[in-house]
Amino acid sequence: MPDPEPNSRLDRQLRFLIEADRLKEVLRRTRLIEPHGVESRFENSAEHSWHIALMAVVLAEHSNERVDLPRVLKMLLVHDLVEIDAGDTPAFGEQGDKSDRETLAADRIFGLLPEDQRDEFVALWREFEARETEEAKFANAVDRLLPPFQNLANAGGSWRDFSVTRARADARLSPIGDGSEVLWEAVSRALDEGEARGLLGSR
Amino acid sequence: MPDPEPNSRLDRQLRFLIEADRLKEVLRRTRLIEPHGVESRFENSAEHSWHIALMAVVLAEHSNERVDLPRVLKMLLVHDLVEIDAGDTPAFGEQGDKSDRETLAADRIFGLLPEDQRDEFVALWREFEARETEEAKFANAVDRLLPPFQNLANAGGSWRDFSVTRARADARLSPIGDGSEVLWEAVSRALDEGEARGLLGSR
Repeated sequence: MPDPEPNSRLDRQLRFLIEADRLKEVLRRTRLIEPHGVESRFENSAEHSWHIALMAVVLAEHSNERVDLPRVLKMLLVHDLVEIDAGDTPAFGEQGDKSDRETLAADRIFGLLPEDQRDEFVALWREFEARETEEAKFANAVDRLLPPFQNLANAGGSWRDFSVTRARADARLSPIGDGSEVLWEAVSRALDEGEARGLLGSR
Repeated sequence: MPDPEPNSRLDRQLRFLIEADRLKEVLRRTRLIEPHGVESRFENSAEHSWHIALMAVVLAEHSNERVDLPRVLKMLLVHDLVEIDAGDTPAFGEQGDKSDRETLAADRIFGLLPEDQRDEFVALWREFEARETEEAKFANAVDRLLPPFQNLANAGGSWRDFSVTRARADARLSPIGDGSEVLWEAVSRALDEGEARGLLGSR
């Protein structure tokens, strides 16, 4: 642990960044894409955060409204950090007291940073969760985009594990359309395929 | 695999993003930080890419020169993708024909994208590797910043695995100073500590 000048600004930043390492140990319920039909390992939230940030760069042109891409990227890079304490809440599982757990987690984890950055990161996380700004809508769209394709490639994946019906998948995924109609159409076609192949229960 | 309109722009983008999933299977020689002294698993290049992008956001103020943070973030998000084909080249291992392998990899992987995005991503990757622009210098600084702290926390880590001396660590890590003198000073203190604790061979 670097501690040359305890409580210096850089020291706080490094402590936060070292703590962030733990997001690599938080597992999601989706698995890596299986090119050869062999069951792959679960995805962790850190590598997922990288993937969706890359997706935002590649797919920004499909956003319904013009968005501030740097703010979208910052939101995607920080929004899962609360899971270090609160764990991943599965899309199709019980939500429980997710909001309370995540608020406590945000206080502790972002609280490691200097105050100005703590406030900025908490605001980005809240903005993502509220899904009200155009940036948050698009960020939420890319956050939800990959699992349907992972599940199609993985013989049902988390749809199978949670016995998901088309209606539940639609409810979970339709906010994609608030960020990008184009991406929601692509996902709808993936859901059609999942239903046709029996990987997703009928409505 | 989504294929509603073969070769459409969105289809090419989705194919690229699905291929990108494989970066999660490329292992580096550094391990996750070990809070309790138990040997942890190797880090993969996808989660590492997330971590350094987050580091760039938090530490941008320490860059020697003012940088275009969005371009730094894009560079960090895409620069490791060539490892899907070329593998990770360990910092302290043989470099071999790294450059040739990575050029072929860039042609194939970025070639999955529509041409304008292929050209943009290839240019970002080359810019990162060349370390000439201020953005590339700062991006390279954050890319090299974490391993010394991982190694300090992990009883030597890759320093021990590759019998690294202080002189070799200095040679590998001193480019951090080209991007940020402040961060290079912090790393130098970490290297002093590593040497004092016998985790790093003497010069």
